[in-house]
This record gives sequence, structure tokens and C-alpha cells, in this order.
Amino acid sequence: MDKKNWGIIATWRMAFDGITEGATMLQDNKSATDAVLTAVTRVEDYPYYKSVGYGGLPNEKGVVELDAAFMDGTTMALGAIASVKDVANPILVAEKLSRERFNSFMVGEGAEQWAFEQGFEKKEMLTERAQQHYIKRCRETLYRGLSPYTGHDTVGIAALDLDGNISVGTSTSGLFMKRPGRVGDSPVSGSGYYADSEIGAATATGLGEDLMKGCISYEIVRRMGEGMTPQQAADSTVNDLEKKLIARYGRAGDLSVVCINKDGDFGAATNIDSFSFSVETSKHPATIYVCERRGSETHYSPASQEWLDAYQTRITAPIE
Amino acid sequence: MDKKNWGIIATWRMAFDGITEGATMLQDNKSATDAVLTAVTRVEDYPYYKSVGYGGLPNEKGVVELDAAFMDGTTMALGAIASVKDVANPILVAEKLSRERFNSFMVGEGAEQWAFEQGFEKKEMLTERAQQHYIKRCRETLYRGLSPYTGHDTVGIAALDLDGNISVGTSTSGLFMKRPGRVGDSPVSGSGYYADSEIGAATATGLGEDLMKGCISYEIVRRMGEGMTPQQAADSTVNDLEKKLIARYGRAGDLSVVCINKDGDFGAATNIDSFSFSVETSKHPATIYVCERRGSETHYSPASQEWLDAYQTRITAPIE
Repeated sequence: MDKKNWGIIATWRMAFDGITEGATMLQDNKSATDAVLTAVTRVEDYPYYKSVGYGGLPNEKGVVELDAAFMDGTTMALGAIASVKDVANPILVAEKLSRERFNSFMVGEGAEQWAFEQGFEKKEMLTERAQQHYIKRCRETLYRGLSPYTGHDTVGIAALDLDGNISVGTSTSGLFMKRPGRVGDSPVSGSGYYADSEIGAATATGLGEDLMKGCISYEIVRRMGEGMTPQQAADSTVNDLEKKLIARYGRAGDLSVVCINKDGDFGAATNIDSFSFSVETSKHPATIYVCERRGSETHYSPASQEWLDAYQTRITAPIE
Repeated sequence: MDKKNWGIIATWRMAFDGITEGATMLQDNKSATDAVLTAVTRVEDYPYYKSVGYGGLPNEKGVVELDAAFMDGTTMALGAIASVKDVANPILVAEKLSRERFNSFMVGEGAEQWAFEQGFEKKEMLTERAQQHYIKRCRETLYRGLSPYTGHDTVGIAALDLDGNISVGTSTSGLFMKRPGRVGDSPVSGSGYYADSEIGAATATGLGEDLMKGCISYEIVRRMGEGMTPQQAADSTVNDLEKKLIARYGRAGDLSVVCINKDGDFGAATNIDSFSFSVETSKHPATIYVCERRGSETHYSPASQEWLDAYQTRITAPIE
């Protein structure tokens, strides 16, 4: 195994600052786990990302409920929390849980209590901005018939370190306007994330309810293990699941994925038009990519300055 | 596809009465879904099974928290609940959730509230007997140094109906002495259960924390889809995961599975000595099997009358 490579990849543009910080750590011989935790924490802490951590959008009752998971692809250890309130950094709790042999997936009040007993930071996660978004969406749903269920941009980050270890983490406030207690794919092993240091890692974002029907992240890693490039594995798995959902379930929700293998090569695939991802590896400069689907292949090009400016304006614009 | 076959298979002896009732329904041209729901409900309702539903063992705080899931292998629809209290039949709530496009996996209070709003029965699930078990285990753990974490006998039931539909359901009170909020593999798609009517279904019982590291049920179904017999798929997947866990994680917990394919052929595999399962198909009489592992193969023979008598005595014996 070529141990000279490192890399870090994440769903969405929002993870870019986090992954460049993670990339610096990886170059510095820090572990994939540390890079993932740092990068996910950055996204959780940033108030203008409305689908993860602080500033995340609330559920239908106006309460922010968070899900997160972590998996160490070397030991296969995994930890996850779901439906927790007031936890400042769900990813850190998930990582701590991954070090427990028993009780490594915890939800709700039990998970919160354990996290606070362990000394994890308690924080009111609902920002004024998120609350304004919530009120606006309530109005739109009531008066304009818009679907309440849009906005489920989970951050999923996978990293490969110089020692060949691969880790993956996810964090999300989940489906917007979800019912209290709803859990998506992000804390679910094999669906929201999967990592195996002998092969690679994958992580997903989109409609968790549909991603779980195909164990999409496990399947991508498995296909990479059978010899597919990360791009082939990502494209073929998204296409196969989408086709299956349409044929069997009658429709397919948003399915977007990123993955990286043990050589530091990466892939991304989506069935929507607005998917972006962030990546930096020993062979590839730090880049924000915007995806476009052509037939059964996902193509991507670096985000233009115009795209980036529009993004920044959008996420910080006043909410009417 | 030969549509003359039907079959139903379940983890553990405790499901026997339920699956024979399910088998009668299947012969009668009832759906796989109805057969699974009836069979799982029987196990949930029976007070002497201490790992599922009513009479299930409580968590470390003395509270019964239940997990369940349901998947329709024809539509790929799935629903699950976890960490719920006072819900008489978690499997029925999971099935109802599988008919929701959004919010199909729910946990904790939010899940309870939704279930009761939908009219599902509320019931105190802690029996006096389960409480005595709990007190006894607390003593053993405190004074005799026994591991609190034994007893996690999830019921998982998969059925094939005469129309070729395959469904699967799980229900459990989870790892005994679990922390409040702990969730195992049973409600996790691909780990505790998976079904695809074009292939088959699989369901698992054992240490959820380890079963989730390998997406064991998804992998068994996938291998059947590649042409393995159910028995080959079950044995090879359990063996591969056990080896991987020992090599990478340092140890492997209990891993037991049953599966059935679209032709009504079945398989079972385990890495422990005490696993039993219940099965009846159009080609196979209703049987309780006791498993034994020889090398990398699981062998099973019908439970002897002696074994059955000892079982009945054990589950109804007074608790000292």
C-alpha cells in the first residue's frame, strides 16, 4: 500500500474551510480521525450553515434535533447519536461512543444525559436566524403549499491519513420540518456512512428515508473493494439505487455521495443538480466542485467565483 | 419465478408459535407482511419472552425501552422505531411508519407521541417477572462481577408469500442493562434486517454494536442475489464478519442470522452455541432447530423433546 497519500473529501461547499484545515493536519501526519473531527466540528460551529449543528433548522415543533456518527475504518469501531438537543458538537459525542464496546449508538434524552455526564458542551443550538427560517417555512407551507421537506444537507466527511487509516463522520439537523424524533441515514451505519481502511470510505446526503433503502455507503465501499474506481463506485451505486427506487417504490428522493479510497482517489455522484462537494488530497488541490449529472454519469467542475459569491450572499442574506 | 412456494423463518425458538400461525396465513394466500406482523406480535405479547415486547428486560435504570423495524421487500419501504416506552406492539408502529415517505424512522418520545396519536395501544411493558430479573442481575453484576450485557435475543422474522412478496420484521428490548437511549441493530436497515422480493430477506440477532459494523443482513441478501444459497450466504457472511472483527476490532460479539430466498429455501448461521431458530415453508414442516457450529459451517438439528422441556422450564421458572 502506498502510504504517501492523504486526502479529505466532504459533501457540500459548506465543508470547504473545515477540510482545508483537516488537510493541513493530514499533511502534518495527524490522524484521519483528528482531521475528520476537526473538519466536521467547523461545520457544526458555523452559524450560517442551516442544516448542521449550531444554526441548524428546527423540527416541526421548532426544536433543533441533531444526528451524527463516526466510524474508524481501521478498527471498524463506530458510534452514533440521534435526535439529541442542546449538544454543541454531536460529532465529538459520536466519536467518543465509537470507543465504547457496548451502547455505541444512543438516541434522545439518554444520549444527551450521557454526553453531558461525559463533559460535552451543552449549548442552545437554535439561532435567531434558524428560527426566522422556520417561521418563514411555516408560512410558505401553510399559505403557498410548498413542501416542508426540503433542506437536508448533511455534512459527511471522509479522510485518509499518511498511515493508511480512513475515518468518516457525519453531522446534521436532519430533514427540515421533520417530526420530533425522526432519524435519517446520517447516524445509520452503511447508509449515511461506512469506512474500511483496507478499501475506502463513503458518505451520503439527501433523503435519508431513501438512502436507507439501499445501504448506499456500504455498497459504494464494497464496490471499491471489488476494484471499481471511487467514481465508478459512486456513479453506479447512485444510479442502481435510483433505478430500483423508481421501479419498486415509485419515486426516488435526493441521493448524493462522496467517497475516497486508500490511494487517495475520490469520487462523487448525485441525482440532483445542486450538489457540491469539497476535496483536497496529496494529489489534488483544495477545490469546491459543483456537480452536474449527464446521463448516468456525474460530472463536476470547480465552482466559479460567481457561484461562490452567490452562495455566500444566499447563506447570509436577511430572511424576509 | 415459482409462485407456488411460501415460507416463514425466525430467529430463536420463542417465535415458533408465531411462525406456525404465520404459515397458516401464508398457505391461505395472506401476504408476507400480514404473516410477519402476526408472528412478531405473538412474540411481543407473550410475557415469558424476556427480550422482546411485553415482559422484555429493562435498561440499566429499570425502564423497558423497545426497538422494532419492518421492511417490505417488494416496495423497499421500511419503517423503524427505537428507544420507545409503553408501546404495546412496536412492530405494528414500525410497519405503519414504513408507509410514510418521510419520517419513517423515529425514536424516543417523538416516536411514542406519534404512535399514540395514531391510536396504537399504550401499555406498561415492565412485568413483575422482568423486574425480578433486573434486580437479580443488578445483584449479580454488583456482587459476582458478571457482565451485565448478556441477553439480547431479538426476534427477527422473514416471510415469503404465494405472490412472491418478501417482508421482514424485528422487535427487541435490546441489550440487557443497556444505557437509556441505547439502540442496537434491530431498527437499523441493512444490519438488523433487509428484504428484497427479487432475492430474499435476512435478519440478525446478537451484539448489535458488532452486527452494525458489517451491515450483515444487507450483505447476506446481496450474496443470495449473486447466486449463493441462503445457507452459503448466511455462513459465509457470519464467518467473514467474525474474522474481520477479530482481526480489526480485536474481538467479535454474538452474531446469528436467518434468511430465506424467493424460492422458499432458507439458511441460518451463528458464531455461538446456543442459537435456535424456527421455520416452516411449503417444502419444509414446522421445525424448531438448534444450531451447532462446526468449523466454518453452521449445522442444525430439530430440537429434542428434552431441549424443549428444559426451555419451557427455564423461561417459566421462579426467579430466585
